Amino acid sequence: MKISNDNPTRRQPQEVTTALPARGDSLSSLAMSKPHWEDSPYFDGWKEYARNPYHPINDPSGIIQMDLAENQLSLGLLESWLYTHPEASIWTEEGLSMFREIASYHDNLGLPACRKGIAMFMEEVGGRKAKFERDRIVLTAGATAAHEVLTFCLVDPGEAFLVPTPYYPRFDRDLKWRTGVDLIPVQCSSCNDFQITIPALEAAYEQARARNIEVKGLLITNPSNPLGTTMENSTLRNLLAFVYEKNIHLVCDEIYSGSVFSSPKFTSIAEILATEKICQTDRVHIVYSFYEDLGLPSFRVGVIYSYNDTVVTAARRMSRFSLVSSQTQHLIASMLCDTDFVRKYLTENSKRLRERHEMFVSGLRVAGINCLNSNTGLFCWVDLRHLLQFRNQEGEIILWTIILKEIGLIVSAGSSCHCSEPGWFRFCFANMDDQTVQESLNRIHLFVESKTPNQRGMAG
Amino acid sequence: MKISNDNPTRRQPQEVTTALPARGDSLSSLAMSKPHWEDSPYFDGWKEYARNPYHPINDPSGIIQMDLAENQLSLGLLESWLYTHPEASIWTEEGLSMFREIASYHDNLGLPACRKGIAMFMEEVGGRKAKFERDRIVLTAGATAAHEVLTFCLVDPGEAFLVPTPYYPRFDRDLKWRTGVDLIPVQCSSCNDFQITIPALEAAYEQARARNIEVKGLLITNPSNPLGTTMENSTLRNLLAFVYEKNIHLVCDEIYSGSVFSSPKFTSIAEILATEKICQTDRVHIVYSFYEDLGLPSFRVGVIYSYNDTVVTAARRMSRFSLVSSQTQHLIASMLCDTDFVRKYLTENSKRLRERHEMFVSGLRVAGINCLNSNTGLFCWVDLRHLLQFRNQEGEIILWTIILKEIGLIVSAGSSCHCSEPGWFRFCFANMDDQTVQESLNRIHLFVESKTPNQRGMAG
Repeated sequence: MKISNDNPTRRQPQEVTTALPARGDSLSSLAMSKPHWEDSPYFDGWKEYARNPYHPINDPSGIIQMDLAENQLSLGLLESWLYTHPEASIWTEEGLSMFREIASYHDNLGLPACRKGIAMFMEEVGGRKAKFERDRIVLTAGATAAHEVLTFCLVDPGEAFLVPTPYYPRFDRDLKWRTGVDLIPVQCSSCNDFQITIPALEAAYEQARARNIEVKGLLITNPSNPLGTTMENSTLRNLLAFVYEKNIHLVCDEIYSGSVFSSPKFTSIAEILATEKICQTDRVHIVYSFYEDLGLPSFRVGVIYSYNDTVVTAARRMSRFSLVSSQTQHLIASMLCDTDFVRKYLTENSKRLRERHEMFVSGLRVAGINCLNSNTGLFCWVDLRHLLQFRNQEGEIILWTIILKEIGLIVSAGSSCHCSEPGWFRFCFANMDDQTVQESLNRIHLFVESKTPNQRGMAG
Repeated sequence: MKISNDNPTRRQPQEVTTALPARGDSLSSLAMSKPHWEDSPYFDGWKEYARNPYHPINDPSGIIQMDLAENQLSLGLLESWLYTHPEASIWTEEGLSMFREIASYHDNLGLPACRKGIAMFMEEVGGRKAKFERDRIVLTAGATAAHEVLTFCLVDPGEAFLVPTPYYPRFDRDLKWRTGVDLIPVQCSSCNDFQITIPALEAAYEQARARNIEVKGLLITNPSNPLGTTMENSTLRNLLAFVYEKNIHLVCDEIYSGSVFSSPKFTSIAEILATEKICQTDRVHIVYSFYEDLGLPSFRVGVIYSYNDTVVTAARRMSRFSLVSSQTQHLIASMLCDTDFVRKYLTENSKRLRERHEMFVSGLRVAGINCLNSNTGLFCWVDLRHLLQFRNQEGEIILWTIILKEIGLIVSAGSSCHCSEPGWFRFCFANMDDQTVQESLNRIHLFVESKTPNQRGMAG
């Protein structure tokens, strides 16, 4: 059987509101709609990558995957932990006695030990500056689910979140579809390293209001995806002041908080709330997951941490559509309650990310390519404006296509992140080994050299 | 922190449609709404059970949980399998080499081996009368999620499914909330053992149409929850004819198909489609899970099997909000691809369920209590009409309260399943050991004796 990605529409989404006499066999408007992302050229890029992935021996000219923010640098640390902790497995002589308890029915609170471990981990990542109450932790099957559940809790269809740009492209794909939320980009620019400013927020807010759109919240990623930067305390305080003034919510995606590899340190919004002794905290909500920081993307453990009691209750009810396997909860619980391991892991992971980042960024520098200064994450924000044929979005797509088809790298283009300045790209560097990073750099060097023979001649 | 179950509503759901000038800090209408179930007296019953659960030593007068359809009878078989298959665990020397592959990023198709194992298991359960294509399998975090995703795919808010009664109470709680589907009960009665009839379906369909409600599908559970019965082939053929005539979808929940313990055998809708050589299959969708048949409720593995290509594509996209941990997929894959184990498990599980069912039903018979003849499931449908004080819903709630507070058993009342005849109750019998079943029977006997001194005297 072939499942098509195209919808052989018996009914177009725009026709949905018209009641027809006998349309019982048709599908919902959601099922008939095509998600935003699949209309973009980048979707074709992923399909092309799937047809021809790089392999050092089997396909050395294949496409290298640099559009996947996955951390493979520290999996060995996790392997060692697993091997030395058989009691945490329901398979082993030491752990089998837990099987019945793990397998049997649990409500949607999640295992207490799992929530305890998550709270301890979030405290550790935040430098032990704020406490996380385990009763405020809602588990979901990954960060995507956490974001969707939170959106279902905060907005009605047609209401909006402000989202500073550049932002994670899949917010468009994931958050809008079933909830009906509108995402309104807040323009940030390279002139101040893409930092969020209050005038930009005010402008986006006022434009939305002028279009009669109800703004319900501000959604930020801190550390930023795709920038790889952490927010300053003063910025966080300004954002809090903004949401209080506008009477809206603040959703802080902190899924890269355990991936900071150099100064400045990461500040969680929880630390600001704790140190500023802000009473009115119930508009603040944090999203976390173990995809990025632990390198466990497919274990699907997402977290909503809300300071709002009603949101915690509603999100927990909704989490029954998106529960985390108790087998995986048991693993997470055992691993994260091992404080010694967590501290060593965070330190070593940070070191490995720093070395990898330095390797990639300095390799780019040799080719005359600069990146935004960054201190976190599994990617960097690369400035290729000087390689654009045209200084507009079309020029960016042309360059992105060249990177895909000629250089053989799949990366994210800034326009997919709503970046208003053409020529910026996100390159992921932690989902591969050193040799593959070197191969990607070699290809970039060759390409840049082939494009600049005159300059090289002049320089020589 | 105390999370209240009550919503301290700053905004009532009914006010949502009225746009107010500054309501940005309010929550969504979903978050502010109280789910159907929490308004029922049965919700209080669960809270009462949570405060005072039965334990043979610590709390021998506590409430026995007979409202939980969970199979604990065959967990030992699973334990033995785990212990003898260390290669299927990422913890062991034999299986650790799989860790990186399991942990790394996978798309939402699910592991191929997992889908293969599920297809093989569904074929085995269906008596190998129909093939299941693994490309039509969509994985979700449990059957609840599978049902919700399928509903999102088939209906727009306000459209409806017909659901024969008595039906699983949590359909009201789980399916309606976020999708906006309307569930229209189809009346069935004890005069024909609650079998679904075409006149009852026609009546419900016409009433819905008269109320201008668009009926999009018929949702059945086969085997039935709460009846514990399987549907005859002729019934399934009639239902198919009905949905074809009305141009609507058929959703078949088959989550108890591996729990049949006596004749007649289970017939999957897949078998009907295969043997009748029906071409127009794309209105048929199956929901399955491993909660009930394998006794793994908290591992959260649900399945949508749709014959409709567009539904498969849309459901798979939606499954990213509800993915199954790859760790658990790996376990399911390893276990279900072991055909010998699966056959032995199904045979032995069936034997254990038959013995337990016989023990409970014969124990009730001694107390003068009859059940609907059943051949499957983890529960039976108990006729307590002769114990009703009033032959109406109020009388049923009074009796349910007596069962909870005086006898000390939590069970489901027929009215929570939309049963139109007061006095029927669902008793679960597979989530406990023999001693606890005996304790529940002792309590029932004592109660019945205490209520019938005259009759006993007369009989004596």
